Amino acid sequence: MLYFRNDYGNGAHPAVLEALTRTNMDLTAGYGLDPYCEAAAETIRDLCAAPGAAVHFLVGGTQVNKTAIAAFLRPYEAVLSAASGHICVHETGSIEQDGHKVIHCPAPGGKLTPEILRSMCAAHSGEHMVVPRLAYISNTTEVGTVYRREELLALRAACDELGLLLYCDGARLGSAMTAAGADTSFPDYAETCHAFTIGGTKNGLLFGEALVITEPSLQPYFRHCMKQQGAILAKGRLLGVQFSAILKDGLYLDLARHANAMAARLTAGLKDMGVPLLVDSPSNQVFPILPDQTVEALEKSVAFEVQEKLDGGRTCVRFVTAWHTAEAEVDELLKTIKEALA
Amino acid sequence: MLYFRNDYGNGAHPAVLEALTRTNMDLTAGYGLDPYCEAAAETIRDLCAAPGAAVHFLVGGTQVNKTAIAAFLRPYEAVLSAASGHICVHETGSIEQDGHKVIHCPAPGGKLTPEILRSMCAAHSGEHMVVPRLAYISNTTEVGTVYRREELLALRAACDELGLLLYCDGARLGSAMTAAGADTSFPDYAETCHAFTIGGTKNGLLFGEALVITEPSLQPYFRHCMKQQGAILAKGRLLGVQFSAILKDGLYLDLARHANAMAARLTAGLKDMGVPLLVDSPSNQVFPILPDQTVEALEKSVAFEVQEKLDGGRTCVRFVTAWHTAEAEVDELLKTIKEALA
Amino acid sequence: MLYFRNDYGNGAHPAVLEALTRTNMDLTAGYGLDPYCEAAAETIRDLCAAPGAAVHFLVGGTQVNKTAIAAFLRPYEAVLSAASGHICVHETGSIEQDGHKVIHCPAPGGKLTPEILRSMCAAHSGEHMVVPRLAYISNTTEVGTVYRREELLALRAACDELGLLLYCDGARLGSAMTAAGADTSFPDYAETCHAFTIGGTKNGLLFGEALVITEPSLQPYFRHCMKQQGAILAKGRLLGVQFSAILKDGLYLDLARHANAMAARLTAGLKDMGVPLLVDSPSNQVFPILPDQTVEALEKSVAFEVQEKLDGGRTCVRFVTAWHTAEAEVDELLKTIKEALA
Amino acid sequence: MLYFRNDYGNGAHPAVLEALTRTNMDLTAGYGLDPYCEAAAETIRDLCAAPGAAVHFLVGGTQVNKTAIAAFLRPYEAVLSAASGHICVHETGSIEQDGHKVIHCPAPGGKLTPEILRSMCAAHSGEHMVVPRLAYISNTTEVGTVYRREELLALRAACDELGLLLYCDGARLGSAMTAAGADTSFPDYAETCHAFTIGGTKNGLLFGEALVITEPSLQPYFRHCMKQQGAILAKGRLLGVQFSAILKDGLYLDLARHANAMAARLTAGLKDMGVPLLVDSPSNQVFPILPDQTVEALEKSVAFEVQEKLDGGRTCVRFVTAWHTAEAEVDELLKTIKEALA
Repeated sequence: MLYFRNDYGNGAHPAVLEALTRTNMDLTAGYGLDPYCEAAAETIRDLCAAPGAAVHFLVGGTQVNKTAIAAFLRPYEAVLSAASGHICVHETGSIEQDGHKVIHCPAPGGKLTPEILRSMCAAHSGEHMVVPRLAYISNTTEVGTVYRREELLALRAACDELGLLLYCDGARLGSAMTAAGADTSFPDYAETCHAFTIGGTKNGLLFGEALVITEPSLQPYFRHCMKQQGAILAKGRLLGVQFSAILKDGLYLDLARHANAMAARLTAGLKDMGVPLLVDSPSNQVFPILPDQTVEALEKSVAFEVQEKLDGGRTCVRFVTAWHTAEAEVDELLKTIKEALA
Repeated sequence: MLYFRNDYGNGAHPAVLEALTRTNMDLTAGYGLDPYCEAAAETIRDLCAAPGAAVHFLVGGTQVNKTAIAAFLRPYEAVLSAASGHICVHETGSIEQDGHKVIHCPAPGGKLTPEILRSMCAAHSGEHMVVPRLAYISNTTEVGTVYRREELLALRAACDELGLLLYCDGARLGSAMTAAGADTSFPDYAETCHAFTIGGTKNGLLFGEALVITEPSLQPYFRHCMKQQGAILAKGRLLGVQFSAILKDGLYLDLARHANAMAARLTAGLKDMGVPLLVDSPSNQVFPILPDQTVEALEKSVAFEVQEKLDGGRTCVRFVTAWHTAEAEVDELLKTIKEALA
Repeated sequence: MLYFRNDYGNGAHPAVLEALTRTNMDLTAGYGLDPYCEAAAETIRDLCAAPGAAVHFLVGGTQVNKTAIAAFLRPYEAVLSAASGHICVHETGSIEQDGHKVIHCPAPGGKLTPEILRSMCAAHSGEHMVVPRLAYISNTTEVGTVYRREELLALRAACDELGLLLYCDGARLGSAMTAAGADTSFPDYAETCHAFTIGGTKNGLLFGEALVITEPSLQPYFRHCMKQQGAILAKGRLLGVQFSAILKDGLYLDLARHANAMAARLTAGLKDMGVPLLVDSPSNQVFPILPDQTVEALEKSVAFEVQEKLDGGRTCVRFVTAWHTAEAEVDELLKTIKEALA
Repeated sequence: MLYFRNDYGNGAHPAVLEALTRTNMDLTAGYGLDPYCEAAAETIRDLCAAPGAAVHFLVGGTQVNKTAIAAFLRPYEAVLSAASGHICVHETGSIEQDGHKVIHCPAPGGKLTPEILRSMCAAHSGEHMVVPRLAYISNTTEVGTVYRREELLALRAACDELGLLLYCDGARLGSAMTAAGADTSFPDYAETCHAFTIGGTKNGLLFGEALVITEPSLQPYFRHCMKQQGAILAKGRLLGVQFSAILKDGLYLDLARHANAMAARLTAGLKDMGVPLLVDSPSNQVFPILPDQTVEALEKSVAFEVQEKLDGGRTCVRFVTAWHTAEAEVDELLKTIKEALA
């Protein structure tokens, strides 16, 4: 079975596993108050050129989004998100569970823009409406598109103008920084976002998202919020150990770059075959549109997900590449598709 | 530095780490919908003689308590807990965060009794008060005491009489089942509790608590609640792999038995020295009462926690033993205390 | 100043005020547990031909929507509402504050249909998404349109098919039952809705909404939920007294009929002048589209609200008639508009 | 039937009812944005010598406590309250419903002290515990005792020292200011409390509590929180009209003084008979301890509430006097008790 279902289908990159094994019998303080976490946090502050940032390590993506937003907002404040945003549809109302409305913004290509922010803020006024307070973006987005530096700068300027916080869900931040045409690196996120995450789960860790809070007013009492949400890991040092391993010598970006290259190879092959794509994604998610019977045929030998049923007997599917995807696997997938299309 | 701070200061038992390493590059479905989790769940159902139980794997203790209680209760329903209960004081109001009052019950030895349940239910009537609906117990308790089978049966009978759910936080369930004088095993929990947890974090796993829901009416939609709480692990199979490893060939109970034996050795040594204990704990937590200056002296070479400042220049401290605690470490600790007392 | 701002700009109908005055010095039990509330509830059960219905009296519309929905849903369940629904935009996220997502459904004319319900339910599946559980409709809708009996029957059939509860916000239920072309009466709501409200505030009371819960499984512990939400009025009998007065001898419907007639007179006059309307509303809200300068001119002598800024220098405004609106006031308004348009 | 059940058993004082009747057909803006509310707020700011205070009018006591506390606290913050506090036991967990723990403090006589505050704050430290942030007091307390000015000053000093907000539930504030031995007046509350309420429901209004927020940082966006909680009354001016009427010419204090005098007459009579009292209450609630059979006999002709079953065949009951209680009624009650005791 070829595996293109997602980028979290296996365990950890060998370097990460080795670090866990090496430190396994060390005895440290719990809850992330250990030297490994401190070192990893320091590495992140350095990478981001953000010496004043607070860095926290959480286990998963829904957890970090939920915990951060619950901590940052007052009760009547709401989140602006592209309608395709992960928090809008795929987190079972976890933001609302903590009391906050998520305002779904129509956003072509899954990306918020200053115009969207201005328009949504303008539509909310007076005490009978929630107050938009946080703009949630994902980079890469849920459809594989990527924000460039100028877009982030423009979003931040709009946020400053509108009194919004800018929060970037970086579950696939490595992919966003290494995609073809991308021009962002860690310091750009520290510069433009009040808070953002560096995703580990989808790029080589067993689990783990690092939350970087650059805005000083959002930093106090964050660990209280984490604990209240059940988001402090007892053996918290597991997160520090893993992040230190993956961030060493550029490994984090190397892994993402590889995944993107495999996706580019896949995209090129699909284009050669004339297969249309939902969006032109430069990152590690590819969304071809295929005839229903082709999709059915593929399911026998390929693991993948259906993105959306379309009309005209067509289906948009999603193939995801990962740090461990081999060229041969991509080529085998392309061959399988070609045969199924024939 | 001697380490008696807690039972989650290191990584995983070698057998667990080996299983994670062995399965590391397998590619499976995410979110716990994989063969490893299914196998571990089946093992637990077998061990508990509870074929109809729903078994879920969550990362941590606060998370599982919070998720279960939020899923089980309606908005006006409340929890009864011993005032020393973990959810009362050490989880930063995580139950209240989901809208539920935790009623602190005075409970000598950290244990609820049928009398306490009846008395608290009698004190709550009418629509101006919350409705007690779930009795939360921990086994072992937060002060190391242990519920016996007859106590669990009596609690369940009282719960049935009062319309309460019985929930057991088994963060240290292995210790509870293997303590001196203990007479419970897995099926007793399935028989008496509507839901209970089997703690992994404090007994050999990197992380992980198994939630066993025996009451059928509490089973539907539980995974929705987990996702909403950020409590579904992307690489969920890590939990299945670990639980399968630890539950194999009685390892789980063996590790707990060892920790208890080390604690018993420590207790015996303390008694020999005439050191008074806060409670007579048969499990892996020991609570000696020491002169303040002794405590201060110990801090130089022993990692432990202060339980409570007492009057008369005395302090109650907590020593915790674990699966990896060596006899020599206990003896060294006793020797250190003896010297500090001299 | 001509007053067409809303239908809650003054106090109570004289008959209601008289009843309050007459009973003012009676001494009764508090919290709605008094003979006046019981009598009013009985009257409502009779009017609705719903002897098994639970009837509760709450102070306001946001309060009753919020309390009912919080009581009816489990944590992961969500509400389907027309995007124009009051709970979507004008209640400051009060439903989300209790943890529930409100799914905004595109709905022309402000009305949900079986097709919309089916489509939205089909789009939500699996534990990563909320579970749609309650369809929220308003009758009259926020844009003055009215559900007919066959539409309610079709919605209920769809709800039964989809496992949804049907909830009708009847803040303007009197207007809905007496609008031109309307064919519903109280028993139709009891027959088709699991719960609905009979609005008093906008039809002659000082304040008050009656909640009728026909679905037996939603009835238990509702007063606990009310109290928890701060929604039990200490002198609850004020609500019973008022509802008894307004429901006597058909007064409730008479008042609504009058307001509708005044709106119809206004609509006819506007059409005569060739003024376009946003929707063809048969109820007591009228939405003419006027040139911006006309709107500006009107503001000097008429109290009303702006519904929406449109392009082309036009604005949609809202005029609301009430039980106390006089023919002469409508004619004066029409004259004022005519002059402003000239 | 003699009525001593509570102080909200009837409607409004005639002056209040007259004001409502007189203004009934006025047409104003809704939601409390009307001249009546503005005038009443101005009167309150004058009475309190607090020109910078924000004043809001809400319908009921649970509602105002819940809305204020939800607005003032961040998610991990908790409330300190005497265990007898209204929010602890008689509001169905309404504070917890919004996510905040209420810490029950043992407090003799129902009153918090600086020592209690210091001790409870000292017991909460670190991110595994909630952060006490708001001290909730009631004046008069739930057992009729009264805080004096020096006590309020000491509490505020302790709050400043501990980083706490001081909130006073003034459901019976009139009674507290006019009780025998009391020495507080409106400005004392504005001086010592970050926020407090002036209760109308229990002292002559149909309903209504005025919330005075003196702390500037707590003022912004409060109306958003009110709306979100369903706590903005559509015909909000009803609250302004009533408060203006009751605060005119000292009527508010006169009514409370009368109720207190009637309670004092009752207390004196009980003492003459040798009936013991639960507490020595100087306000309008009296708590005699009577033999069970006397209580039973009284129930035939007197409306009152049982406070607590005591041992030895005794029961503590509660008699409440109100602005409308007549001397003759008190004397009749005393006579009835005397006969029942004989």
